[in-house]
Amino acid sequence: MSAVSHLNYGLWRHPDDQSWRYNELDHWTGLARTLEDGGFDSLFIADALGLLDTHGGSADASLRTGTQSPLADPLLLVSAMAAATRHLGIGVTVSTTYEHPYLLARKFTTLDQLSNGRIGWNIVTSQLESAARNLGLDAQLPHDERYDRADEFLDVVYKLWEGSWEDDAVRRDRAQGIYTDPRKVHPIRHQGRWYSVPDAHLSEPSPQRTPVLFQAGGSPRGQRFAARHAELVFVAGANAAGIRRSVDAIRALAVEAGRAPEAIRFVAPLAVVTGADDRAAADKLADYRRHYDVEGAIVHYSASTGIDFSTHDLDAPLRYQETNSNRSLLTHLTNDPTRDRPWTLREALAPAHGLGRHKTLVGGPSTVADALEAWLRETGTDGINLAAVVNPGSFADFAEFVVPELRRRGLVAERPATPATLRERLFGQARLRADHPGHRHGVAA
Amino acid sequence: MSAVSHLNYGLWRHPDDQSWRYNELDHWTGLARTLEDGGFDSLFIADALGLLDTHGGSADASLRTGTQSPLADPLLLVSAMAAATRHLGIGVTVSTTYEHPYLLARKFTTLDQLSNGRIGWNIVTSQLESAARNLGLDAQLPHDERYDRADEFLDVVYKLWEGSWEDDAVRRDRAQGIYTDPRKVHPIRHQGRWYSVPDAHLSEPSPQRTPVLFQAGGSPRGQRFAARHAELVFVAGANAAGIRRSVDAIRALAVEAGRAPEAIRFVAPLAVVTGADDRAAADKLADYRRHYDVEGAIVHYSASTGIDFSTHDLDAPLRYQETNSNRSLLTHLTNDPTRDRPWTLREALAPAHGLGRHKTLVGGPSTVADALEAWLRETGTDGINLAAVVNPGSFADFAEFVVPELRRRGLVAERPATPATLRERLFGQARLRADHPGHRHGVAA
Repeated sequence: MSAVSHLNYGLWRHPDDQSWRYNELDHWTGLARTLEDGGFDSLFIADALGLLDTHGGSADASLRTGTQSPLADPLLLVSAMAAATRHLGIGVTVSTTYEHPYLLARKFTTLDQLSNGRIGWNIVTSQLESAARNLGLDAQLPHDERYDRADEFLDVVYKLWEGSWEDDAVRRDRAQGIYTDPRKVHPIRHQGRWYSVPDAHLSEPSPQRTPVLFQAGGSPRGQRFAARHAELVFVAGANAAGIRRSVDAIRALAVEAGRAPEAIRFVAPLAVVTGADDRAAADKLADYRRHYDVEGAIVHYSASTGIDFSTHDLDAPLRYQETNSNRSLLTHLTNDPTRDRPWTLREALAPAHGLGRHKTLVGGPSTVADALEAWLRETGTDGINLAAVVNPGSFADFAEFVVPELRRRGLVAERPATPATLRERLFGQARLRADHPGHRHGVAA
Repeated sequence: MSAVSHLNYGLWRHPDDQSWRYNELDHWTGLARTLEDGGFDSLFIADALGLLDTHGGSADASLRTGTQSPLADPLLLVSAMAAATRHLGIGVTVSTTYEHPYLLARKFTTLDQLSNGRIGWNIVTSQLESAARNLGLDAQLPHDERYDRADEFLDVVYKLWEGSWEDDAVRRDRAQGIYTDPRKVHPIRHQGRWYSVPDAHLSEPSPQRTPVLFQAGGSPRGQRFAARHAELVFVAGANAAGIRRSVDAIRALAVEAGRAPEAIRFVAPLAVVTGADDRAAADKLADYRRHYDVEGAIVHYSASTGIDFSTHDLDAPLRYQETNSNRSLLTHLTNDPTRDRPWTLREALAPAHGLGRHKTLVGGPSTVADALEAWLRETGTDGINLAAVVNPGSFADFAEFVVPELRRRGLVAERPATPATLRERLFGQARLRADHPGHRHGVAA
């Protein structure tokens, strides 16, 4: 996130952490270069559109602990990072609920052009009541209706990205004075329940046309949405078994929807604390844990679930409650078939050997590489979304200690001589696969 | 504009023009460096949100002539240009009609932070029916109602930028674990006719808080809006006398609204064709004129006025017609008190010695400097908005040939050793002046 603390609650208090530089360009261009040089495929920035104010009924704890506040706009960071790199993919969260498809389409086309095809879009529908309240809705739309609308939103942008401008529409013919051949630019004539977009896309096609589509929906409706649209899915879960269940469920739904099993790449969040050897890594973890702030974790978890956990006993079992927010986060913890009782808040957010919600691997290069191989195998995922503990130190450490070991094992590819688009890195082709629903809106179709 | 042709209709056909690189990052970062090194205060990018389809009732001529199409999103260029420069101001057009104030406020705060206070916002209300049609409105709002809504929009963003976070709200206190002091972050509780925004700004204050406000409204209602809100006004007119009338009218309205006469800087568009001497400049103009495309000019003028001029006799006098678009553009030409008859389309768009709508100065360094001094005196303006004829050649030529002469005359300041904010460059202070209406929403107030 373009904030001082996303999931690394309280770690801004660590002397090595530089997250407070989130509003400096050098912080982001430096991070992008660290990741590109370190062999990462892509950087990803999450976002939210409201303050986290479920905890205690106000934003006070969020502000005080620096949890996802203050918050800047991540999309505006992209061109600087694209200019500082040549290979790195850049994925950004933008909500379908508070943006119009005609303008969102132009934004991603612009960024995909500027970056030579290295852009991903993490599709979210927004879950915060605080966003709805300040953005013109009395209350947010019901959960499933947000996804119904997002389905139509995607149809609109597919038409604009894939079906409006033919590949050879731009002629740039100086002699004849024809910049674009109007016969090769098609109005999309979209008229749906939520959107009316009669005209052609404002922008000529970018290298990928449609940006690589990321999605993280964990609810049943969110999983159906991911199975239909996503090319890269962020899967969360209480543990490896829970993540595997999500992967299997979404892949099965994708196949039902006519997509190949390999049409989606799955990625789970993971923190890695590493160093020259296991001892150094263990010392680092102990140091980090002293700066971890469980209150920040509870602020975030309250906002994500829509339930105020500020007075919840840390050691009482969690119970499922119906809300209009991200129910799957709570479902994972109240209904985990691998356990005989629900999780407690402490077990979920302040684990004895980790740092917050997600799995933490700790150790020197080969220990982490071994654990990572096992993790990918157990979860059935294709890669990881490496979460910062300290920023940018966690990324620099991973690049320095772990990536060389992963390269030796053939798990991280050498960088190609010529830059590729993000979709080429993930799927070997710049444009949508033929089994993707956006493909049928293509000009050729 | 982030397009192949904004006002330099047809010049993309000139071999020196590189506007077709509008979707390459190097084009923009290079342009920004050329302007910064050349002594310019600021770069400005216009925008529109629809295709130009008034001419002949379709976008065909706009597409064919490359007139403001294809079109990319200018706001997304800013961070790359900010990273490539240290001094240059960067102003960008964003419409109040299709954007929510809570999100627009975060965008400009983000860019102002990333650029260390070098951002300007050109406030427009959008005049294209094609934008309205694709962005969820059956037809655009009536002209004056767009400005009424924009007035409230500005009130909301003033409250967010000036009145929500106190200067010392962010404590970043590691020892006490206080990132932000919640007592110094204030919900704005805005409840108006158009917008309801109860909560605090998402982002901490940027160096300028409110970006420098640009505006170009030429209609009576637009002039009232500019007089109230703008710090820098783009004034258009058929000639110097017409521009002077607009300057005087807006300044008088500003004084009526309680602002000092010097609270607004006025800038008129101007093209400059220059070279080592007058002969070289005249040759260049003759060459450029061969590539000028009056059809592109008519496409743009039709869209701007909302009147289809595709079949209008180039030499017939223009008559005033009431439309829902930018009426002032037509008023200038049909009601020019310095002339005994209205302008013709040819006189306005294909002048015998110029290049399009705006005044063109032609000559070597001292000829242009003399003409520029006279122009500033006659129009009562404070500076110029230098329009590209060929891009980036027009800017490089001006920097090479004219700026040194202007520096000798004391008309362009030497660059300060330490970068300043854009408002400091224009007004000597980073924050809004005390007589600006946004100032009263400040935390201190």
